[in-house]
Amino acid sequence: MAANKQRKILVAVDEGEESKYALSWCLKNVVAENGEDTIVLLYVKPPQTVYTALDGTGYLFSPDVIETIDKYRHDVAETVIEKAKKLCRDLQNVKVETRVELGDPRDKICEAAEKMAVDMVVLGSHGYGLVKRAFLGSVSNHCAQNIKRPVLIVKKPKT
Amino acid sequence: MAANKQRKILVAVDEGEESKYALSWCLKNVVAENGEDTIVLLYVKPPQTVYTALDGTGYLFSPDVIETIDKYRHDVAETVIEKAKKLCRDLQNVKVETRVELGDPRDKICEAAEKMAVDMVVLGSHGYGLVKRAFLGSVSNHCAQNIKRPVLIVKKPKT
Repeated sequence: MAANKQRKILVAVDEGEESKYALSWCLKNVVAENGEDTIVLLYVKPPQTVYTALDGTGYLFSPDVIETIDKYRHDVAETVIEKAKKLCRDLQNVKVETRVELGDPRDKICEAAEKMAVDMVVLGSHGYGLVKRAFLGSVSNHCAQNIKRPVLIVKKPKT
Repeated sequence: MAANKQRKILVAVDEGEESKYALSWCLKNVVAENGEDTIVLLYVKPPQTVYTALDGTGYLFSPDVIETIDKYRHDVAETVIEKAKKLCRDLQNVKVETRVELGDPRDKICEAAEKMAVDMVVLGSHGYGLVKRAFLGSVSNHCAQNIKRPVLIVKKPKT
């Protein structure tokens, strides 16, 4: 790899296997061995409305349930980031930064890529699970079309 | 770059600056310095109908004109491939294979990726020029959605 400068690579992670695969593929195939690259792990918590929309009526969830969901979302974010960091440590000598954002993953990933002026964005192709994807639309399509930087979409091979 | 095997990287090239930029970015950022990677340069000649469709009526082009167009298409293919090969030689110690296909670039790129079982596909985001794109639709969108392998879309920064 002929990269002659410190690159910043933004990897969007979520709870799915696709994003885990994308991260390992990137670590094995793109990250420089000289340890000069920085991986920025970004997890975007979907807004609460995505979960309450599942309810359909908007009435059924009691405050207790909402609180439980909130706690769950916080735990998921922590777990996802921790697992991703471990993967980075295990696979490569790479600097890691982490970021958790709240909002629509499509917007937040595009914003982060721009704000941090990253050299590359790496995404799994089926991020954010089946249910959430139905609400949020395809994250990778949106990002590939809107981010003005190199975007790598990694698909997990069917085994 | 931790790649421990010989990888095959398919780069779709055309006459545009976008694809030239995508190729150089890939050579600088993805191709391994150990010289074990192979770049497959793929140029897809759009079918003749794309050009004759420009005519609108389908009647106006004489056989002479058709022949000139054919010659032009052949020359373009050769020039594009030659320029891309030179870029590869200039930028990296990398093995290069070339391929010219005839047809819809969207289909041909997807087919080639599958047939050659490449490790990665690299595309510029605005391939195949404004006029042809109007007929062919977005190549990069289609490929990102249909190729079951890592797809890297490289956008040329506006200067």
